[in-house]
Amino acid sequence: MTKKYVLVYAPATIANLGSGYDVLGVAIEKPGDIVEAKRTLEPGVHFTLSTIHENVPATSRKNVAAHVAALMLEEFKPPFGIKLTLHKHMPIGSGLGSSAASSVGAVVAVNELLQKKLRRSELLRFAVEGERLASGSPHADNAAPSLFGGVCLVRSYTPLEVVQIPIQKTFFWVVVHPHVIVKTKEARSILPKNVPLASAVRQWGNVSGLTVGLMTGNVALVGKSMEDTLVEPFRAKLIPAFDEVKRAALSHGAAGCSISGSGPSVFALAPSLKQARVIGKAMRDVFQSVAHVESEMYVSATNMNGAYVIDSGKG
Amino acid sequence: MTKKYVLVYAPATIANLGSGYDVLGVAIEKPGDIVEAKRTLEPGVHFTLSTIHENVPATSRKNVAAHVAALMLEEFKPPFGIKLTLHKHMPIGSGLGSSAASSVGAVVAVNELLQKKLRRSELLRFAVEGERLASGSPHADNAAPSLFGGVCLVRSYTPLEVVQIPIQKTFFWVVVHPHVIVKTKEARSILPKNVPLASAVRQWGNVSGLTVGLMTGNVALVGKSMEDTLVEPFRAKLIPAFDEVKRAALSHGAAGCSISGSGPSVFALAPSLKQARVIGKAMRDVFQSVAHVESEMYVSATNMNGAYVIDSGKG
Repeated sequence: MTKKYVLVYAPATIANLGSGYDVLGVAIEKPGDIVEAKRTLEPGVHFTLSTIHENVPATSRKNVAAHVAALMLEEFKPPFGIKLTLHKHMPIGSGLGSSAASSVGAVVAVNELLQKKLRRSELLRFAVEGERLASGSPHADNAAPSLFGGVCLVRSYTPLEVVQIPIQKTFFWVVVHPHVIVKTKEARSILPKNVPLASAVRQWGNVSGLTVGLMTGNVALVGKSMEDTLVEPFRAKLIPAFDEVKRAALSHGAAGCSISGSGPSVFALAPSLKQARVIGKAMRDVFQSVAHVESEMYVSATNMNGAYVIDSGKG
Repeated sequence: MTKKYVLVYAPATIANLGSGYDVLGVAIEKPGDIVEAKRTLEPGVHFTLSTIHENVPATSRKNVAAHVAALMLEEFKPPFGIKLTLHKHMPIGSGLGSSAASSVGAVVAVNELLQKKLRRSELLRFAVEGERLASGSPHADNAAPSLFGGVCLVRSYTPLEVVQIPIQKTFFWVVVHPHVIVKTKEARSILPKNVPLASAVRQWGNVSGLTVGLMTGNVALVGKSMEDTLVEPFRAKLIPAFDEVKRAALSHGAAGCSISGSGPSVFALAPSLKQARVIGKAMRDVFQSVAHVESEMYVSATNMNGAYVIDSGKG
């Protein structure tokens, strides 16, 4: 009857989508993290990282997955503990919401062992605590789409309010992750504190256009509305050959191209899966030939379901 | 066969809708301007204002309706002239797109006499020339909805690109026009040149929420997403008792309330026409009792069609 074991997949996400800085995010199918949770007799969270990674904290106190699991156990006080194993399959510091995927995988897994005590929407507040631990701020633009799937709008942070944008059709995305390090903190600190009102107006015209395009299935409108004149120009400096990579994406048929989250991954919107592969290859080639940087690419439709249970065992 | 005479109604519009400063506008059913156009043998535009108004230019060179009509005749060089009469039924300087309604009425009327040479979407570039004459800048956030109806997004000004937002259901609006003067130029000059990036992010989260709400028929989401923390606080100072009027609107059931265009009109989103009247009365009462200012109110569903031909005669 009661679940004793669960294995959960939580997907990567592209935050910002260009103009929608800090408010929009979309879930893709891969990459993603896998979180394994088992009931134990001893109370509390017993955390393990399946493979040691240089930049992933391996302790219960510092790892986001263990942290959010512990918060849930503290609140619901079940008569059991949890052995939590994180299979970190996502690249770290890639701009693809790696910490959010780990947190989301953990909250979904723990909720399964708690007999689905909470609805998905109620899990978000725990998942964003992982983001707070990772970056100092409870950002939801990666966590929400990883949890809910599709495109999510963080309409408000105080109070936290997420709107799932009902998108009209499948959009296809390609993400290219160059092997360079961009620190989220640096990517934030490089941004201006103030921006011209006229530029902000241009940006929210684009954000509205992006929203209309997503809801009407208008790929061309989404692509051009991704234009970001406020954040991308600053962050582009942290990514070698960004301008050339973007030009290559657009000249190979991308409807739009921008930085995924705080980078260094660069994403493009493609008219089909097939074209997404062509665009991604062109982008990788430029990273290699111009910046002499290795990269990998992920091609994917929009992930409409978010995190899901791969396997579970009852006891 | 050919039209010799046409009478056109062009509606008022609520620009900005709170957070969508300079990019969003909605057409309402009333008030509006009426433009009458008749073929004449003499070439050129012969302009008359049916009633003299203190703040409406009465000459061909300065009146927006005559100006846009003349531009169309210059471009298409028909073998006739036009006697153009503007019946100015809209309040001037009210923040309801009075000059846009006059321009739109004129371009639609002239296009009828030109045998509908242009599609509606092609008329916009003439209508915004009226806005340029009136305010120095070719704003489209009033002209587009007056011309097309519904809710329009000015996604980009360079180049001019308008997106008609497919709204899901009829929304109900009440506009209260207090009898005070707000100069558009002052309403613009009072705004800061730069704004905090964090506030701009909050604003475009709201603009996206507004767009989703309009397209899904979610009145509550539209209402709260109208929140404007960047422009309204400055312009509110130009409107006596604005804060009290807004509070009255919200406490009488408005889903949201903000300044129409550059003011002084204040509009609210209502759940029904009946409630719109209740809300409008409460707003007028506060203008009267707190600011000792007379006002009139307009209650209306969204105008889904924009400007239309009332009457025409063939020759």
